[in-house]
Amino acid sequence: MTATCRIDIPLLRGPVPLSHLALRTFIQSGDRAVDATCGNGGDTLLLAELVGPRGKVWAFDIQQQAVSRTLARLEEAGLAERVELHAAGHERMPEHIIDGVAAVVFNLGYLPGGERTIITRPETTLAALEHSLGLLLPGGIVAVTVYPGHAGGSQERELIETWAAGLAPRCFYCWRMAQMNSSSAAPYFILIQKAA
Amino acid sequence: MTATCRIDIPLLRGPVPLSHLALRTFIQSGDRAVDATCGNGGDTLLLAELVGPRGKVWAFDIQQQAVSRTLARLEEAGLAERVELHAAGHERMPEHIIDGVAAVVFNLGYLPGGERTIITRPETTLAALEHSLGLLLPGGIVAVTVYPGHAGGSQERELIETWAAGLAPRCFYCWRMAQMNSSSAAPYFILIQKAA
Repeated sequence: MTATCRIDIPLLRGPVPLSHLALRTFIQSGDRAVDATCGNGGDTLLLAELVGPRGKVWAFDIQQQAVSRTLARLEEAGLAERVELHAAGHERMPEHIIDGVAAVVFNLGYLPGGERTIITRPETTLAALEHSLGLLLPGGIVAVTVYPGHAGGSQERELIETWAAGLAPRCFYCWRMAQMNSSSAAPYFILIQKAA
Repeated sequence: MTATCRIDIPLLRGPVPLSHLALRTFIQSGDRAVDATCGNGGDTLLLAELVGPRGKVWAFDIQQQAVSRTLARLEEAGLAERVELHAAGHERMPEHIIDGVAAVVFNLGYLPGGERTIITRPETTLAALEHSLGLLLPGGIVAVTVYPGHAGGSQERELIETWAAGLAPRCFYCWRMAQMNSSSAAPYFILIQKAA
């Protein structure tokens, strides 16, 4: 074995580490970014760190419980002032954001630890994805973690896959990243980049 | 639009930029790495840069023409002394490498600008992939660009996909990354990471 000490190697155990790796790669200090589904605030916190003191994050969630949890985490980390939180569905993104953004993150399905019948809905998810593409800077990304396993998940997956397959290949580089040694119901990751 | 100047954003136009992004993420200065198919030397050159002056690269190609081109590029960049080149099939990797490596790169198919009937063969590719897994450090990766479009390519794809699907999920995180808005014959990327 080599004597080299290898530090902070990310481990790609599932789609969320992959999504975080993409965010770290494509977001720079001073950028603007959107968390379309803030949930327990994990992605929002990472975005707030990555955009730095001159950047800005918008975060949305239809559940007040999620927004409150996210706010608490941001305050604990001293990063709340970088983030504009909205207790609203992500399809309402265009009412709040007019500027070009470097990244929009989606983590679909239900709120972990919350009410499992409250899930992202295919129609509003698709509307929010469409809005997101329109907000991107050249080279900017939409990062989507898809959970086909829960009730309604496979319908949402089909709609997103059909939508993504129809994007113009010269305008958007659109990647599906799924584990090969896992069940087809396992969560996976979609990465869409706007061409420069 | 934001006034921020965003620099060096990688563009994910195809599987090769994605492979290079993975190499930049998982290889650190001082590491050891392998180019299993050095071809025109593009990947070898990147590996030689990434491993730095204390690192080492092994590069293989069954065609002398490929090895000569790669050597010329390395010499031009002043990086030849970091690389041990072998005009040999990648299935012979274990004869030359005994230490743990951070990354093994494969770029399958034929040599660009070379004889198109000389292609990577499913049996030797599979043997080399198996060897590669055994050489990896914890957290290390095998990065494979697959070209199903040429004659023999779809057979190679099937064999690799079946092999990858059988890897133990606790030992290897195994991702298939393909463009969603592209033909099924388009080249794609496989990223396998050894668990830590």
